[in-house]
Amino acid sequence: MDSAELVEPPRNEARSIGVVKTQYATLFESPHELQLVCGARLGPVRVAYETYGELSAACDNAIFVCHALTGDAHVAGLHTVDSRKPGWWDELVGPGKGLDTNRYFIICANIIGGCQGSTGPNSTDPATGTPYGLRMCPFLTVGDFVQVHSALVKHLGIKKLLAIVGGSLGGMQVLEWVSRYPEQMGAAVCLASAARLTAQGIAFNCVGRRAIVTDPNFHNGDYYDKPQGPNHGLAIARMVAHITYLSEASIEKKFGRRLQHAERFAYELLHDTEFQIESYLKHQGSRFVERFDANSYLYLTRAMDYFDLADSYGSLEKAFSRTQARFLITSYTTDWLFPTIQSRELVDALVAARRHVSFVELSSPYGHDSFLLEVEPLEELLRPFLEQTYLACQRESTP
Amino acid sequence: MDSAELVEPPRNEARSIGVVKTQYATLFESPHELQLVCGARLGPVRVAYETYGELSAACDNAIFVCHALTGDAHVAGLHTVDSRKPGWWDELVGPGKGLDTNRYFIICANIIGGCQGSTGPNSTDPATGTPYGLRMCPFLTVGDFVQVHSALVKHLGIKKLLAIVGGSLGGMQVLEWVSRYPEQMGAAVCLASAARLTAQGIAFNCVGRRAIVTDPNFHNGDYYDKPQGPNHGLAIARMVAHITYLSEASIEKKFGRRLQHAERFAYELLHDTEFQIESYLKHQGSRFVERFDANSYLYLTRAMDYFDLADSYGSLEKAFSRTQARFLITSYTTDWLFPTIQSRELVDALVAARRHVSFVELSSPYGHDSFLLEVEPLEELLRPFLEQTYLACQRESTP
Repeated sequence: MDSAELVEPPRNEARSIGVVKTQYATLFESPHELQLVCGARLGPVRVAYETYGELSAACDNAIFVCHALTGDAHVAGLHTVDSRKPGWWDELVGPGKGLDTNRYFIICANIIGGCQGSTGPNSTDPATGTPYGLRMCPFLTVGDFVQVHSALVKHLGIKKLLAIVGGSLGGMQVLEWVSRYPEQMGAAVCLASAARLTAQGIAFNCVGRRAIVTDPNFHNGDYYDKPQGPNHGLAIARMVAHITYLSEASIEKKFGRRLQHAERFAYELLHDTEFQIESYLKHQGSRFVERFDANSYLYLTRAMDYFDLADSYGSLEKAFSRTQARFLITSYTTDWLFPTIQSRELVDALVAARRHVSFVELSSPYGHDSFLLEVEPLEELLRPFLEQTYLACQRESTP
Repeated sequence: MDSAELVEPPRNEARSIGVVKTQYATLFESPHELQLVCGARLGPVRVAYETYGELSAACDNAIFVCHALTGDAHVAGLHTVDSRKPGWWDELVGPGKGLDTNRYFIICANIIGGCQGSTGPNSTDPATGTPYGLRMCPFLTVGDFVQVHSALVKHLGIKKLLAIVGGSLGGMQVLEWVSRYPEQMGAAVCLASAARLTAQGIAFNCVGRRAIVTDPNFHNGDYYDKPQGPNHGLAIARMVAHITYLSEASIEKKFGRRLQHAERFAYELLHDTEFQIESYLKHQGSRFVERFDANSYLYLTRAMDYFDLADSYGSLEKAFSRTQARFLITSYTTDWLFPTIQSRELVDALVAARRHVSFVELSSPYGHDSFLLEVEPLEELLRPFLEQTYLACQRESTP
């Protein structure tokens, strides 16, 4: 869900957190110690994570960022001095920024089932010495991601997080986390997300998965020792998903009917780079294949489809009934993948459950990707919200 | 763009036109007689067409129906007595229906480049004795479709059509036809269409084409003598396109999160038939592969992308300035592939060109497919509109 090329806001280098390093924790160390929702067991489980800022002596300033479908633990800063690619939410996370690393200790971890350092289908199965592939487990759920995140937080010596923050699939993790471990956070920030994916969202995921599994290089997920994986299928999956992350208006404004190479049509029936939008999408597909694993794409999109908070807890009201966390919910006017009506459902349930909730529908032209791109209004919301949460938590912990 | 399974309105068998037969005309009989917009030449050209009702002695009651992307000449009736599949617009075309075969002579022809009887990439190239494949021509345009339709009309001995009618790509043909041959029709009915495809529409077409051309069974379009064509790619193309034909609300209402086989999840990571919407889409893909040719899909979606009426004629106003035809334009509230704003652009240009135009945005839950499914309101519009057009044409031809 990165659209760095679509809109490049001016970058303030001076406010970067600088060079950061991914760390690794081994959790659920005994074999089969982690029981997944599907019933299968995993262990030991490796978790890739990054932290920024300093944990306070009282351990009361930690904020956990949950990444979206194809994100990773690298939220902010650079992996090397001369890297040109900062973390995926570098605009929001850093000294003096919305998630201010001068004040807060920020944590982000790659979800299990992913492919950026945490245990996933491309990890070696200790039982066989070969990659898990789709034998890692029958399926994964948002509950599994959250169980591992929660364990990492304890592993880091943090009893209670100041806040958990996430957009899209990251927002689903926020909702699941606050329902499952209701006392582990002071606030829950859920951006451009929902208590369940729409049928249309499932439909787009379905097309992407089908492109992967019908790619002859898929080999039922055992492609790691092959010269090539299901790259064509994975690229198609990314292309179709990418369209759903953008608004019709933003595609129209950025690309319209402009041509890629010339002022006149080249009439290339086969190569699909005639229009700029085609070239852009093709590039998105190719780039994605370089960084993402097809089996992970299957596991994670399925987790997204299966997520249904009301179904898991009886109702949304029941899901939210056990927490004292303060909620901040945002939606975006042009987001058609997670439309505002779905955020309103969350707000209605929170109000019914008598929880503390702030809701803002932000006006933005960038569709679903707005939560990544429209950082300024988010900063304006987050600063006072986190401040007040911090004060509320202080009051609460004072005997 | 058929969604017969999505919504099945009650069918009135008694009003069916009955058994009909596809006919074939050979036009542009000399070799290379047809000059295409791309500069290539074709000939002879075969056109598959059907007609319903009787042509009046004065030849003044003919209506030409232009089909959409994957449609064909079989608009109404049945091909055999015991057929269970009527023509694609059978609800609208027949005795006493909106396009009343008791009054009008209805014609529909398969567009060239298609695969349902007219010359297309699966036709035999007379020069080589093998299928054209992508050697048929570098590309096709809506102008080419219309040139052939126009020739067919003359071939049938009809100087002036009462009306031309079409939705989606069929509507683009209507717009091109009325601009290119402004005196050949009394009225132009353009449903759920536009003077050009949006960038988002091009994007979805691009994904579909990419799925086809990266399928290893594609062989640059020369798959006709192979055991299998690019069926997986073509099915993916159809699946993604199909989502764009439906509204989010209609998918949600019809399928929601309901499961296909059981009350509980089967957790099938690979087979993608867990949710009803997945099973439905997969079925749409498989069925499409049985009836459609991948090379045709490439040619026709490209023609759709390339269509840009304002660009071809200098402006929309100029495109419409030469015709005296009466226009009926409709859009549908939930159509996000051809949104109402695009129909309004047409109306604005027609008003500026001082043409006679009626415009209605019809309220319908079915998205782009509404023009096929919401027949009743269309009937109500068409009946008086055609009646008045007929009277206007009579007055005009009276010396």
